[in-house]
Amino acid sequence: MKKVITISREFGSGGRTIGREVAEQLGWAFYDRALVERLAKESGYSEEFIEKRGEDATTTSSFLFNLARSGGTGNYGGGAGSYDGTPGLSDKLFVMEYNLIKRLPEEGPCVIVGRCSDYILRDLPDALHIFVFADESFKADRIVRLYGERDDAPAKRLEEKDKKRKVFYKNYTGRSWGRSQNYDLCLNSGKLGVENCAGVIAHLAEL
Amino acid sequence: MKKVITISREFGSGGRTIGREVAEQLGWAFYDRALVERLAKESGYSEEFIEKRGEDATTTSSFLFNLARSGGTGNYGGGAGSYDGTPGLSDKLFVMEYNLIKRLPEEGPCVIVGRCSDYILRDLPDALHIFVFADESFKADRIVRLYGERDDAPAKRLEEKDKKRKVFYKNYTGRSWGRSQNYDLCLNSGKLGVENCAGVIAHLAEL
Repeated sequence: MKKVITISREFGSGGRTIGREVAEQLGWAFYDRALVERLAKESGYSEEFIEKRGEDATTTSSFLFNLARSGGTGNYGGGAGSYDGTPGLSDKLFVMEYNLIKRLPEEGPCVIVGRCSDYILRDLPDALHIFVFADESFKADRIVRLYGERDDAPAKRLEEKDKKRKVFYKNYTGRSWGRSQNYDLCLNSGKLGVENCAGVIAHLAEL
Repeated sequence: MKKVITISREFGSGGRTIGREVAEQLGWAFYDRALVERLAKESGYSEEFIEKRGEDATTTSSFLFNLARSGGTGNYGGGAGSYDGTPGLSDKLFVMEYNLIKRLPEEGPCVIVGRCSDYILRDLPDALHIFVFADESFKADRIVRLYGERDDAPAKRLEEKDKKRKVFYKNYTGRSWGRSQNYDLCLNSGKLGVENCAGVIAHLAEL
């Protein structure tokens, strides 16, 4: 029996929907929007600002480099071995988010979507780390259906969103986003179906 | 209901065992050693030679380049649009293997392990393409238990075998071996368990 599931996903793949469905099937807490709300409450920043910043790191800053130099590992923020660089606002928010995500499993079993949660909880026993992806046409159809038409073509919207996620992930984890070996299970939701993906994940979590 | 499953795997991950188990559960044909035997029969080369060559392309030759220049796509060997470069022995064998793997699904539902079968059957409807991997310690334990101790350390044996597979795959497909988006499902067998992986694959194939 697992206690935590993290879900990383390509934009438009249905990973968020899969996460919600898994949480419902298992009766677990679901952290997506709820994570933003918690972070806003604890940090004092607005939900809108946190949400935008969470996928909008446009440069590969020296966060990890500063962290390594300071000898920081495990728990960030305060105390020995903690992060003592001179972080920007994004870095400060990441540290808050890091510490919040580290604490969540202590409150009970949960599903967490995005926010580098796979990396932050990589050493946690009883965790299942999932990556959801799909082919371009499946994702393009899905975002137009869910979020409507925009000035930009669907292909461009997909590319830009995932590019931001890749840069953000690389910046704060040093790892390559979507590399199969970073996860326990990678699913092509376009091929397997969103409902089937949720069923398989819930099944594996209960073993 | 799917009709073909291809399984690519890191050395020592148990992918071959998973494939055999899935084939047994579904009552499907299993092509691993059987593929080598068929190819030996059809080509006249010895099984030993074919087996060694299948994972022993040590250079990135110009096979794909020659193929692209000749306009060859789909079915190789003979006829319009076929491969008419000046292939080496390995290339000739790959063409035979390519054509054999293309024909296999016509004979009935089957599980095929390795040999670039995911790439060769990438456009086939009703196919499920799987990648199996595991962490180093799981794989090291497994190869020592299954294949015994050798002069080389387990870590070195793992690295050398997978390096050959990567080069072979890149050479003949132009794709990156183990990239999650090339498959429908990637499984960490060390984390999920070999039996559970087989169960999930068989379940998804029957949907």
